[in-house]
Amino acid sequence: MNPTALVQKIGSSWPPATWKDVNIGIALSGGADSVALLRSLEEIKQSNGGSGELFALHVNHHLRGEASDGEQHWCEELCRKLEIPFEALQGDVARRARKEGDGIEAAARHERYALLTQAAERCGIRYLAFAHTQNDQVETILFRLLRGTGIRGIAGMSRVRGLTPTLSLIRPMLSCTRNEILAYLSEREQSFCNDQSNTDSQFVRNRLRNELLPLLRSNYDEKVDRAILRLSEQALEIQSFLEAEARKLLSHSLRGSPADAQNGTTRLKLNIAALANRPEILIREALRIAWRESGLAEQEMNFDWWCKLADLVLSPASNRVLNLPGNVRAQVIENRLHLEWQHS
Amino acid sequence: MNPTALVQKIGSSWPPATWKDVNIGIALSGGADSVALLRSLEEIKQSNGGSGELFALHVNHHLRGEASDGEQHWCEELCRKLEIPFEALQGDVARRARKEGDGIEAAARHERYALLTQAAERCGIRYLAFAHTQNDQVETILFRLLRGTGIRGIAGMSRVRGLTPTLSLIRPMLSCTRNEILAYLSEREQSFCNDQSNTDSQFVRNRLRNELLPLLRSNYDEKVDRAILRLSEQALEIQSFLEAEARKLLSHSLRGSPADAQNGTTRLKLNIAALANRPEILIREALRIAWRESGLAEQEMNFDWWCKLADLVLSPASNRVLNLPGNVRAQVIENRLHLEWQHS
Repeated sequence: MNPTALVQKIGSSWPPATWKDVNIGIALSGGADSVALLRSLEEIKQSNGGSGELFALHVNHHLRGEASDGEQHWCEELCRKLEIPFEALQGDVARRARKEGDGIEAAARHERYALLTQAAERCGIRYLAFAHTQNDQVETILFRLLRGTGIRGIAGMSRVRGLTPTLSLIRPMLSCTRNEILAYLSEREQSFCNDQSNTDSQFVRNRLRNELLPLLRSNYDEKVDRAILRLSEQALEIQSFLEAEARKLLSHSLRGSPADAQNGTTRLKLNIAALANRPEILIREALRIAWRESGLAEQEMNFDWWCKLADLVLSPASNRVLNLPGNVRAQVIENRLHLEWQHS
Repeated sequence: MNPTALVQKIGSSWPPATWKDVNIGIALSGGADSVALLRSLEEIKQSNGGSGELFALHVNHHLRGEASDGEQHWCEELCRKLEIPFEALQGDVARRARKEGDGIEAAARHERYALLTQAAERCGIRYLAFAHTQNDQVETILFRLLRGTGIRGIAGMSRVRGLTPTLSLIRPMLSCTRNEILAYLSEREQSFCNDQSNTDSQFVRNRLRNELLPLLRSNYDEKVDRAILRLSEQALEIQSFLEAEARKLLSHSLRGSPADAQNGTTRLKLNIAALANRPEILIREALRIAWRESGLAEQEMNFDWWCKLADLVLSPASNRVLNLPGNVRAQVIENRLHLEWQHS
């Protein structure tokens, strides 16, 4: 077998020297993208050696009865032939949806990440590799644009992101197109399962892929994918600049004030003297970083909530109390912003 | 006549106290938007008084023969009835297109701004008011998104912008919708001319307005206009933050080094010691501001050129010379970036 364009592209965007000696988990659904990722990482591994191992991790949500089990079985067979350790992770989406009060779609996503993270820790995995492609990236950005998003949203999915202190998510095919993937699979005579999922956002995304993007390419600008990707690169760059500046600011504000936990309540204190007179966007970003790094969930903290919290910091009054999503209570006491919440 | 929603909206977004004592020029094409702007500013003026005057300025490009002259005549009649001074500015787009080597559309835009700015200076006008609406803003952002743009592009058209040290452009209807405008005109029983222009981008924009946006609203998200506008607000805010940081940096770099002009050559020297080790995005922005404020044209300086210039600053070598669009020569000599160009 000759190395093809796809394998070379993945190898140069994620050089094997940086990962050949650690364990890699591949999220394998059985669809074209994840099968191509599995096979090309396996090829790269074959030619580069190293002490790390590849693991295929398949999440079975049991949402589509026999079809779900069929896909699990298909993935297991593929891995047996390739001699790659395979693990099927059994999800219970209904239970998670009840527990978290989310819709099925959000619950499936949370369940998937939770199961993959647990399995990764069991197998000593350092990188969890996901098969998102450049087409997925364009569709994600367009999807977010139409539904409403900020600069972080149009920056798109990140190529690499920490999940836990010892585990990172990576998307090695984020600059590969669907056509490159199908050409590779055809060259290897490798079959794959057709993705049958049709959740609400999957439904919209299929229409973005099959109707809207083709229309935009033919009737408005054939280079629209490239335009969206370049905008997203610029959004990522400016957002990273803002974050770096916010971190500098935060390093002053948090000096000597780590979060403390007592009797089931955690309290984070931020010195807001350093925040006064700085642009509101920088304050919101610093608050967001402090929030996330305290382990608080960001989901429900939309733009308006960050504006309210920044306003509390910029116009503090000791009797103002702000109740925020996630049961977080915010108050300014003696030049410090106090954030208090119960342990879950 | 009762003040309507539109008049109130314009009055609160551009309080008459800030402009009633200066002269205002209104760019009047005769279309619904500019007729609504003229009439509502006239109403606001009537109720608020002040020593400033309103002027209606109509650019006739003579691109559509009798139709162009008919619109000029229609505008003149309207202003006569309203007792607003009217001036028709005669454009010569073909001449400008030959001179600048641009297409007809760019030439028409440049000609329009040049004629309006000259007329504004003749009439002692402080603000040139344009009738762009919220719908125009959404269409502009979407148009740019599809053709390729950066964060500044999706920030959209600015509400106010300096044209010369004594003249600013203002868009008082940027938060008014087309429906609000048509409702106002109907209430006032005020007719208007139908815009007949059909340039290349106008053609695409008409399709954005009449086909793409209705499709996005009905098939993807009915609040897509709102989503695009909120994204643009966030883009403007983060871009303004970047610009403010770049100006701080630039104030160090330019200290004691104003541009000097000798024998037809202008030379700008920037101390690049302060630029080293700063993020590339900040350096590009600082260079862009220095460029623009030296009166150099930005048009042809696309993203790739800014990256090349930033690279010269970050990896200086005394023998590297970079030839940039607009016949600008860049070179680093003894820790200073020299930008040299001929006067035109």
